[in-house]
Amino acid sequence: MSATVSPLAPKKYPKMPAIEGVRIATAEAGIKYKNRTDLLAVIFDEGTQVAGVFTRSKCPSAPVDFCRENLAGGKARMLVVNSGNANAFTGKKGREATALTGKAAADAVSCKPGEVFLASTGVIGEPLDAGRFSHLLAGMAREAKSDLWLDAAKAIMTTDTYPKVATATVKLGETEVTINGIAKGAGMIAPDMATMLSFVATDAPLSAAVLQSLLSKGVGATFNAVTVDSDTSTSDTLMLFATGAAAKHGAPQITDPNDARLAQFRRALNRLLKNLALQVVRDGEGARKQVEVTVTGAKSSRSAKKIALSIANSPLVKTAVAGEDANWGRVVMAVGKAGEPADRDRLSIWFGDNRLAVEGERDPHYSEAATSAYMKRDEIAIRADLGIGRGKATVWTCDLTKEYVAINGDYRS
Amino acid sequence: MSATVSPLAPKKYPKMPAIEGVRIATAEAGIKYKNRTDLLAVIFDEGTQVAGVFTRSKCPSAPVDFCRENLAGGKARMLVVNSGNANAFTGKKGREATALTGKAAADAVSCKPGEVFLASTGVIGEPLDAGRFSHLLAGMAREAKSDLWLDAAKAIMTTDTYPKVATATVKLGETEVTINGIAKGAGMIAPDMATMLSFVATDAPLSAAVLQSLLSKGVGATFNAVTVDSDTSTSDTLMLFATGAAAKHGAPQITDPNDARLAQFRRALNRLLKNLALQVVRDGEGARKQVEVTVTGAKSSRSAKKIALSIANSPLVKTAVAGEDANWGRVVMAVGKAGEPADRDRLSIWFGDNRLAVEGERDPHYSEAATSAYMKRDEIAIRADLGIGRGKATVWTCDLTKEYVAINGDYRS
Repeated sequence: MSATVSPLAPKKYPKMPAIEGVRIATAEAGIKYKNRTDLLAVIFDEGTQVAGVFTRSKCPSAPVDFCRENLAGGKARMLVVNSGNANAFTGKKGREATALTGKAAADAVSCKPGEVFLASTGVIGEPLDAGRFSHLLAGMAREAKSDLWLDAAKAIMTTDTYPKVATATVKLGETEVTINGIAKGAGMIAPDMATMLSFVATDAPLSAAVLQSLLSKGVGATFNAVTVDSDTSTSDTLMLFATGAAAKHGAPQITDPNDARLAQFRRALNRLLKNLALQVVRDGEGARKQVEVTVTGAKSSRSAKKIALSIANSPLVKTAVAGEDANWGRVVMAVGKAGEPADRDRLSIWFGDNRLAVEGERDPHYSEAATSAYMKRDEIAIRADLGIGRGKATVWTCDLTKEYVAINGDYRS
Repeated sequence: MSATVSPLAPKKYPKMPAIEGVRIATAEAGIKYKNRTDLLAVIFDEGTQVAGVFTRSKCPSAPVDFCRENLAGGKARMLVVNSGNANAFTGKKGREATALTGKAAADAVSCKPGEVFLASTGVIGEPLDAGRFSHLLAGMAREAKSDLWLDAAKAIMTTDTYPKVATATVKLGETEVTINGIAKGAGMIAPDMATMLSFVATDAPLSAAVLQSLLSKGVGATFNAVTVDSDTSTSDTLMLFATGAAAKHGAPQITDPNDARLAQFRRALNRLLKNLALQVVRDGEGARKQVEVTVTGAKSSRSAKKIALSIANSPLVKTAVAGEDANWGRVVMAVGKAGEPADRDRLSIWFGDNRLAVEGERDPHYSEAATSAYMKRDEIAIRADLGIGRGKATVWTCDLTKEYVAINGDYRS
């Protein structure tokens, strides 16, 4: 969609290995975009377990409703994602479109309709004509291949300027298992559940209950800790699929979320989720800088996160970072407006290692030169210590530039 | 501060009458700005009653603390306001500056220190050198005049592109009384108490308790219903002074907030507060359009206001208005993210008289041409009807343009 790639795009992509039991196909269905793929089908071997977290929006899209319903079964055979149309706020027509797609997908892989999952991303309010692509699914299922993860990430892009992939291998018991993930998202990004589309798959033999526990806990410090513009989408979807194929190679079947053998896998999954979430922030519309906001010394962790988000979502803080100004006064403002317990006279603020304010006043020893040099970097860390407790949280955002306004306001004028 | 005046600035200013018992002086103290006034002193006759509402920020400025403390006495003799420095987050130095200014003001008009009120607006975190202007106060008190309301409004401007004044005359009992108000504010504006500086004075003989009741109730649908950028200032201050001079002309002394004779005065005051609040929105940094957001059919009025603010603060809604696009999908998104009760399939959305969405779907009868023409106006009304209750609220904001980012981000880069 965008002509220029974000300056924060990854310099290179990891080689994405195959996940046994997962096959991928993409197609140019011409739903909205021309001359690019806009349809993704992921086919899972029988026995694949699934978990998901979704937007907390009160106006969720039809596919989100569809997935929530099917998730109860815990089993997945096919995932169908289209870009260019969100199938959100499309009423009865939206439900008809998901039903039609679900039926076509189930026919394509001979599974139950309840084993199909759908996601749509793009324009809100435009009816989605599922007839335009549902006939493609059978052929896609036949021709799907295991080594198309980067293609998968490309097919689901909207205003993204680069595809987002991540991979990890990790021991489960004595056996190596793989985790692959893709994500999309650049605008309408705010932490309230998943905040964009992301699909993660593994060959580890984990039950749906284990997957759900891993995902629900993992999302808090990763996807739910990033914000581009505080605007929560109607379509946010994060799903985790486990084919279980690694069981053939000796990986243990795990059905208890508290199983100690999950420790390494959990850490690897959380790292992968954070990696994907940061890729979303770094592709934030108009972004030129990544901003990490850490709040320490708050009353509680929940309170720390609320204050961190108040800083990360403040237009004045974000424009100051865009202007390479360590405007800590605006950080004070954002702490103050969060409504959480704070004591002005114990507040200290850092930009990187530069302490600019201490105990409610400008730090008399801070170096203007060092701070100015620091603000020229493309990764800025802001820390506020409240000095009243032990609550701590970190969130990530990007700066607010004229390009954000151009991308979201200029398209018609 | 700004070279170009907002296109939404008033075409002309009302003639501001004198308020008996109020005298005004301004000065060029050179606190930060050069070649303009930056200091305002308002002197009140003995017996003047006062009320105020202030920022709910947990990091309020030193003058806010000072005013809160003095408000308990309910009496005012002098108000001193400086622009260019907010005296916020200035620690012990900040308290010393308010003490010094308070003392100089009290000496200037021979009143108690508790009868002085202070406000400061400008940069946060910079110590305010009160010695730079406190010596001017005695002379200003001597030379103050009753017909300088527009000058008063000019002296307190920061990033404002025009001064903000309003006046009303209304019957109290059988006697005409006058209400004058000034305000400043353009950025760091969000509804949580007063959201900027505004000072209102009247010659009506109303007690401090009556004033506080009028102000606390009046602020909800006026100053607390406007937002420019969701960023609540550390310094927001709205004060109401009543000299009581109209008693000499027969106006009744009112000490009971529930006195029925207040009805007309209350309506006039609320209109004046709304007038000033809208002037602040219309001077929103970078604003080219005023946006009125009304939510009807919500579960409650409180819920309606929360949803209306979610729409009014959404960067995606505000950039769409800047781009003259009736992007109702983003309104759906903003309703959904508010976290308040909503039923997607009962939601309807209007831009002006153009209904774009009805009962959870795009309105099949809407006219693209009529809507596009409407979006070119400089006052845009957005309405969302939730269809689930009788709660109703209106808030006001402006569009989000590249100028906002330039004003807040370009000043150093």
